[in-house]
Amino acid sequence: MTTGAKQTQTELTVIDALQCSKWDRQTLLELRAGGCMCVNITCAFWEDARTTLDNIARWYQMIRDNSDLVALARSGADIEAAREQGKTAIVLGLQNTSPFEDDIALVEVFHTLGIRVTQLTYNIQNLVGGSCYEPHDSGLSRFGQQVVRQMNRLGMVIDLSHVGETTSLDVLQASTRPVAITHANPRWFHLHPRNKSDELLKALAEQGGVLGLCLYPHMLGGAHVTLRQFCELAARTVEFMGIEHVGLGSDLAQGWPEDYLTWMRMGRWIQEMDYGAGSPAQPGWPDWPTWFQSAADYPNIGRALLEFGFSRDEVAAIMGGNWLRFFSEGFQPA
Amino acid sequence: MTTGAKQTQTELTVIDALQCSKWDRQTLLELRAGGCMCVNITCAFWEDARTTLDNIARWYQMIRDNSDLVALARSGADIEAAREQGKTAIVLGLQNTSPFEDDIALVEVFHTLGIRVTQLTYNIQNLVGGSCYEPHDSGLSRFGQQVVRQMNRLGMVIDLSHVGETTSLDVLQASTRPVAITHANPRWFHLHPRNKSDELLKALAEQGGVLGLCLYPHMLGGAHVTLRQFCELAARTVEFMGIEHVGLGSDLAQGWPEDYLTWMRMGRWIQEMDYGAGSPAQPGWPDWPTWFQSAADYPNIGRALLEFGFSRDEVAAIMGGNWLRFFSEGFQPA
Repeated sequence: MTTGAKQTQTELTVIDALQCSKWDRQTLLELRAGGCMCVNITCAFWEDARTTLDNIARWYQMIRDNSDLVALARSGADIEAAREQGKTAIVLGLQNTSPFEDDIALVEVFHTLGIRVTQLTYNIQNLVGGSCYEPHDSGLSRFGQQVVRQMNRLGMVIDLSHVGETTSLDVLQASTRPVAITHANPRWFHLHPRNKSDELLKALAEQGGVLGLCLYPHMLGGAHVTLRQFCELAARTVEFMGIEHVGLGSDLAQGWPEDYLTWMRMGRWIQEMDYGAGSPAQPGWPDWPTWFQSAADYPNIGRALLEFGFSRDEVAAIMGGNWLRFFSEGFQPA
Repeated sequence: MTTGAKQTQTELTVIDALQCSKWDRQTLLELRAGGCMCVNITCAFWEDARTTLDNIARWYQMIRDNSDLVALARSGADIEAAREQGKTAIVLGLQNTSPFEDDIALVEVFHTLGIRVTQLTYNIQNLVGGSCYEPHDSGLSRFGQQVVRQMNRLGMVIDLSHVGETTSLDVLQASTRPVAITHANPRWFHLHPRNKSDELLKALAEQGGVLGLCLYPHMLGGAHVTLRQFCELAARTVEFMGIEHVGLGSDLAQGWPEDYLTWMRMGRWIQEMDYGAGSPAQPGWPDWPTWFQSAADYPNIGRALLEFGFSRDEVAAIMGGNWLRFFSEGFQPA
């Protein structure tokens, strides 16, 4: 132990499969405080190729500026090396295939830049497939089949979180490798277009995929959901999908003003109001549960899962082990 | 008559609702020779906003450089004014909504630049809807509904030529104004994914739309189709849709090398071969019918329709009058 940062660190055991906070040193320190080994962050919601280059370049700079806290991860070995050094591994991700535009060659370009997780659609239909919010889901398009093939080849993890049901089932057919849902819950826990059917979750698990249980209040059903209820969600999901197929994907989005939420939801595709995951009754940023106010609160979840009756190994799997295995395998080229 | 160009001109009576040739002074002279009053040309197949700006700017320059032959038309009055001056009116069009990207505000921007006809999808699914080549047609997406509303408001004609059947039927429901199919034939004449069902053509006509009968050999069924067979196609289509709803849309694409055909078909969306409207048996640019080798051959069609038994007024309607009426109304703001 040679640095102050290392001497004060919590053991890094958590992997959060999706966060989209307004990042700064404070949020990175909270990752450390919460014991976060690795986090998948978002370099594009609506952005095209050019603007995504800006966002990636800013992350290179962010990682350089905070190199005592974080390191860029392009592989499972990078995640483990970062942990050895007491740093949180940053996995660069996209929440949309918009950066690929209509150019199949850009999948490899963004992979080379470090992108390792890509959600196929965000909130509207795109060239690849249908979103969970689209009234008619196209299924996986011909271009989408090409994108899946390239991602499979390169070792870029496919994320179905905001993807429509029909497209998602098509992807499970088309993909030769396991697929992720980084941040969503089963629909039986809370009925929401972004939450997932039993059929989809079952098929995902059978193929070796992992679901990141989501703490975003609109996916939970509200900030009033208790930590015990979350443990019940985890228990029933583990029972249904298997212990190896359940992790965390908080969807934590700290520090953004209301107008950024409007951007995340509406981008530039609509001029009247669209509430995205919210509703006219709940238009703004939701309150978060008292037991998960920031990344520093991951230990609350780990403790609660233990108290609920999960074994130490099971808690370790849910809190980070499953994503570590999945990312380590998924980031390898075919 | 003060200019040599005007003294030698044919009367300008033809409107061609779609051409995508490699334009130069020679092809513009052929329009004049064929009596072309107005042509809708293509400023984007796959291009994004930025690249489409280049293509539009090149058209501004092309029109300046050939101002004795052509004039830019933003309205029906512009088309008629150009004809008065013995010039062919150029209508700027898009064969894809790719230039709008995901930005609803860009519809107005491109309208302001002069775009007056836009095909909602080209050969693959996009943010607006499904293409005729897509195995699963999404129908009109939520963004697509926004685009239709903006085009209706601005006076930008909606073109369904390459659009999938489900999306096309959705557009007829969503659009408050008549809609065009600038270049396609009925499926009964030649079964091809880009040709149109009776149901769609009937609904289009009932709403005041116009179909441009297409001379591209893959839509006709081959270069061997005779002028008499084309007249039979016109007669039966007029019988079915009504004389006011049938025009020409040649899809003439002169002067391009084979690799441009590959670009038109494959853009950047696929790395293996895709034949678009062609097939492995007919991979390249097709031969055109002997009776339509260039825009100078429009009079062959007019004469044949007269000989076939259409009245002078009917021939005038098919050769240009219907599109003149449709464009004049369609280019007006709502």
